[in-house]
Amino acid sequence: MLTLYYAPGTCALASHIALEDARASYALRRVDFTQAEQTKTDYLAVNPKARVPSLVMPRGVLTETPAILAFVAQSFPDARLAPLDDPFAFAKLQAFNSYLCSTVHVAHAHRMRGYRWADDSQAIEAMRLKVPETVGACFDLIERTMFVGPWVMGDAYTIADPYLFTLAQWLEADGVDPQLFPRVADHRSRMLQRPAVKKALADEASP
Amino acid sequence: MLTLYYAPGTCALASHIALEDARASYALRRVDFTQAEQTKTDYLAVNPKARVPSLVMPRGVLTETPAILAFVAQSFPDARLAPLDDPFAFAKLQAFNSYLCSTVHVAHAHRMRGYRWADDSQAIEAMRLKVPETVGACFDLIERTMFVGPWVMGDAYTIADPYLFTLAQWLEADGVDPQLFPRVADHRSRMLQRPAVKKALADEASP
Repeated sequence: MLTLYYAPGTCALASHIALEDARASYALRRVDFTQAEQTKTDYLAVNPKARVPSLVMPRGVLTETPAILAFVAQSFPDARLAPLDDPFAFAKLQAFNSYLCSTVHVAHAHRMRGYRWADDSQAIEAMRLKVPETVGACFDLIERTMFVGPWVMGDAYTIADPYLFTLAQWLEADGVDPQLFPRVADHRSRMLQRPAVKKALADEASP
Repeated sequence: MLTLYYAPGTCALASHIALEDARASYALRRVDFTQAEQTKTDYLAVNPKARVPSLVMPRGVLTETPAILAFVAQSFPDARLAPLDDPFAFAKLQAFNSYLCSTVHVAHAHRMRGYRWADDSQAIEAMRLKVPETVGACFDLIERTMFVGPWVMGDAYTIADPYLFTLAQWLEADGVDPQLFPRVADHRSRMLQRPAVKKALADEASP
């Protein structure tokens, strides 16, 4: 049995959609960020990093979106969510997800979580001001050099698709015009039509 | 044939050591950061992200350390650098590497590359000041909750080991006392004795 710890509006949505794509049997457990539940003792016992997502199973706990996504793809091979028999193609996919995690998500995080990297309030404000530029530059690079189409990695839908979709959902709030990136915008529209995405978004919207 | 594009003192060292561990046949190509070669047209044709490492082969270019490390492990299975037949164990390993990439390396980058996330010079200085605290907190979490021992993931040496070693090499410059983390410090000492590490460090030190 798998349990996904998530919070609405976070990158946990990518793992949530992937579990739906895989037709996995799993339970959802919401972590209440409005009550800072992720910093409380009970949740720190699950994930001492105080972040979501966490994917809990009898063998232990998995964290970090790229790792969870690859785990879902490998554990549910019939869903064909990654090129599991081709190390180069798998690495290209992992490189895309790693870029989302370590560069795109990080750029975005400087809007609301600047306190992680500076104590000074003016510095935190200076970080917030640059987010439209830095997040925009990331999506420009994705649009021009990484997105193959029609899905992120080409003809086959993979675990890169729910992850890109999840981060693209933040563009407006980050002050970036999604229409600057028509291929990413079209991808987002098509993702929104998929039953797995509708299901995950509905789960996260329900109280 | 594989060619690793690297610069001395960067995270490319992790991939370099892993290629040595795998007894791979590869060429090295230094990117001269002192001349900003990573931002010039020739290198941007290899990696439009203007970063190292890049691992080039006839099929294309791989970037992002976690993806390259998993590729090396999968492409040279005889070297036994990852638990390739166990999706959960592989995901635990990938989660560790993802944490190094998206949290530890990012914390470190705020010392020298704060300009990525703010334009204001005082903000950049405020980021620099917090690096000892943020990098220290990351290594404290690694020491207490992630490092299994004797190697990162337990009894077996994996691709997590050269990556942790590479980032631990930056502790002094980041203003963090390595002796605060005795298990990581011991790991670093043992890594320095391995022929693959000695070879990679010697390659990077030669002109």
